[in-house]
Parts: sequence; structure tokens; C-alpha cells
Amino acid sequence: MSGGRLDVIGLGPGSPDWLTAGVADILRDATDLVGYAPYLDRIPPRDGQIRHASDNRVEVERAGLALDLAAAGRRVAVVSGGDPGIFAMAAAVFEAIEGGRPAWRDLDIAVHPGISAMLAVAARLGAPLGHDFCVISLSDNLKPWQAVARRLRAASEGDFVMVFYNPASKARPDRIFDAFALLRETRAPETLVAFARAVGRSDERIIVTTLGEADPSVADMSTLVLVGSSATRSLEGGGRRWVYTPRSAP
Amino acid sequence: MSGGRLDVIGLGPGSPDWLTAGVADILRDATDLVGYAPYLDRIPPRDGQIRHASDNRVEVERAGLALDLAAAGRRVAVVSGGDPGIFAMAAAVFEAIEGGRPAWRDLDIAVHPGISAMLAVAARLGAPLGHDFCVISLSDNLKPWQAVARRLRAASEGDFVMVFYNPASKARPDRIFDAFALLRETRAPETLVAFARAVGRSDERIIVTTLGEADPSVADMSTLVLVGSSATRSLEGGGRRWVYTPRSAP
Repeated sequence: MSGGRLDVIGLGPGSPDWLTAGVADILRDATDLVGYAPYLDRIPPRDGQIRHASDNRVEVERAGLALDLAAAGRRVAVVSGGDPGIFAMAAAVFEAIEGGRPAWRDLDIAVHPGISAMLAVAARLGAPLGHDFCVISLSDNLKPWQAVARRLRAASEGDFVMVFYNPASKARPDRIFDAFALLRETRAPETLVAFARAVGRSDERIIVTTLGEADPSVADMSTLVLVGSSATRSLEGGGRRWVYTPRSAP
Repeated sequence: MSGGRLDVIGLGPGSPDWLTAGVADILRDATDLVGYAPYLDRIPPRDGQIRHASDNRVEVERAGLALDLAAAGRRVAVVSGGDPGIFAMAAAVFEAIEGGRPAWRDLDIAVHPGISAMLAVAARLGAPLGHDFCVISLSDNLKPWQAVARRLRAASEGDFVMVFYNPASKARPDRIFDAFALLRETRAPETLVAFARAVGRSDERIIVTTLGEADPSVADMSTLVLVGSSATRSLEGGGRRWVYTPRSAP
């Protein structure tokens, strides 16, 4: 079959303001949309466009469905929230190709960047990622907790700003507590911390606090957690509190 | 004066496909655009909109000009390429406010995310940021090289994927050589490396190689360098070579 293609896209993490022009074009031209149901629900319906909504945690199967549709000649968009390359569907698509049907290797495939949740959260806070930073998933679904802990220690040793994805889930509510216990051994209690929930959505909630005072129980599956470096600071202005990391940080 | 405001925005790193809807709205409504000349040159002219183009390396002065214009009642957009929060103007704006005129603290200010160069590069490569990663500026204009080296060692210890901004400049062409020398002490020669120059522009050039074979002299001011973790792998498909980091990486 010819004419099929697969575009791996991200919608940005909530607000339609964060959709890119290129992704809007792809959403217009796709014959099939494949993705986690809450992301597909954010896309206005189009006549003739077919939606394949799936549950969470079936990423490789979802990628396989998309690849089969593209191999059958459809124009398929695999839809993530945020950016598809940051703890989202792009890696799952390549994992599926590597372990999957030989025909999938010949498909016309492209990945398109989106506004990642960390960039949206950083913009809301001010400029906390203005200097060197690390991005870590706290989920131990696909890796041992020791691997997470090793990276937390290394990031702490390097005095990086840190962003945590997947800080907690219903099945594993404790990981963010374990991470904070580890950080409290090495980082000063004054270290700035932010919990940003549902950024860009109507129920957005952002809490700025310190490592010493932070209550990790506020983090859930929709929360991104940011931990400052020793140089990250806050600034009162315009009736609010900004968080930023100077460019000359140590 | 009332009615003035300051929006800190990013255009994405080259292609107009990467402009967000929210930033397009701001560009339409701004009375004044402030930014490094090559970024302003990417914006179509509008009647009555004033451009304040500046040289590179005068970020805090540029931010001060923008803040003064906003304080005088203008609707000002401070324009970065990529995302304004990643080694760009957002941190400089807050540095300027912290050390500047008290009136600047009362301004209506917002930061808006953009597609960062690292997300665009990652999408072109496949999904190299599909697992934990670090982002490091190799510039030692504003920090001692020891601080950079400490972070490189920590990131290496944590087996993070690494993204390097500012790998080399005309004044300091050696930093990427120093960084690679350090990484070659700790990481396997098979580690995947990519040099991505001018992503999204007509002269885009991407080289995928290994740490053992990489020639750091290809990196210049417009290049982003990506170094894989021990799990980052490549995959032939669609007549090209993809780079991705599986979600189950150690």
C-alpha cells in the first residue's frame, strides 16, 4: 500500500495557545488519530477522521495499531499531550518498530515537537530552567527504583535544577516521598520547590515552597515537580512570586 | 502609565511550523518587539509595530529597554528563538527586574513557552530524550569551567542522556573538545552522539556518530550536541537512521 504515513505529535500540555502551527496542519490532514483518550478529547472532531482512543499504559500496543494503519495506507497521527519525545509516545513508536513487523521499517515517519509540560510550567513560574537542569521520571514501572535513586544522587551532586515527571500514581504514591527524603540529605532546606498541577488547564494549581517545608502528598499523576539548584531564587513582582535561575549560576 | 505589559516569548528554533498559536497572537498585538536581530528578522513586519533589534550578549540591557518601554505603557514582546526559558531571555528579564527600577516590579509580565531547540532536535533524531536527561550550557562566559566540568561528571555518573547548548563559539572553540575528553574517560566509545546544526532552517545539518568517532570541531554556535545514555540506540528505518532511548532504560 502506498500513501500511508505516521506523524508522532504533541498537543502541548493543556491550553490551545500552546499548539504549534505544524501540528495544527497535521491534525487537519490526518485520516486517523491514535492516542490516550483524554488527549484525543481535546481535538475538535472532523468529518471522516477516525479516532482510536486507548487506555493509558498500553503504549507499545497503541504504537503497533498506528503502524498497522499507516502500513495500510492511512495518514495516521499518534497524539501525545505535551511533547511526544518527553516520557511520551515517540519512544514507544520506535520500540514497537524495533520489535515489530519488517514492513513498519519502510514507512514514512516523522516526529514533531510540542510544548512539553516542563516548558509550560517553567514559563508559569518565571525562568527556573534558565540554567543547567535534569529531567527525571520517578516512575519505577519500567526501571528499578535504584536506577531512579542513582540519578537523583547524581543530579544532586551536580547541583542541577531538577524536573520530576510521574512523581506519584495511585498504585505508587510513595515515590515522591522517597525522592524528597533523598534530596533532604544533600540539599539545603531553603532550596526552592514547586508543584505544578494541570498546567494550562482550568484546574491549574501551582505551589511554590521550599525543600524543608514541602508536603510531597500534594503531587499526583498530573503534577510536575521542580526542585531548584543552589542558585534558584524567587522574586516578588506584579503581585506574585516568580522563580528563576540566573544565567550566571554556579 | 497604565496599559503597558511585557510578554517574554520564543519563536521556536527556525521553522514557522514550530510557532505556537499563543505566540502568534502576541506578535500580532505587540506595539514593540525587542530582541536579537536575527530572531526579529524572522517575524513578518506589521504597520506601526516598532522593532528594537540588538546585538547578542547584551541580554540584561535588552531586558531593561523592554521593561522601560512596558513601564511607559507599551505592549512589549521580548523575542527569543527556541524557548525563552532555556538559556535565553526569560532569566535575563528577571535578573534585570531584581537589580533594576522599583516600577518594573509592578508591571504586568508573562512568560510564554516555545519549542526549544532540544525538542526540535530530538524530534528530528527520533526520541533520544525518551528517558531521563540533562541539559547543560558549555559556555563559560558566566561561570567557571570547573562548574561545567562538575556537572558533566555528575551527568556521566548518573548515565543521563545529555544535551549541550553553546558547545563552542569563535572566542572559545575548545569547550566541546574539553567536554568530550572528559566524557571519553567515563562513557563507552559506542555511546551515540549527534551534532545538530541550524535545526528547522534551510541549512539544517545533522550528524549521528559515536563518542569514539565524533569530531567535536563540527560544533559551532548554532549547533546542539546530544550524547546518549548507555541505553540510547539507533534503528534503521524509512531509509534513515533513527536515535531513541527506550522508556525502560536503566
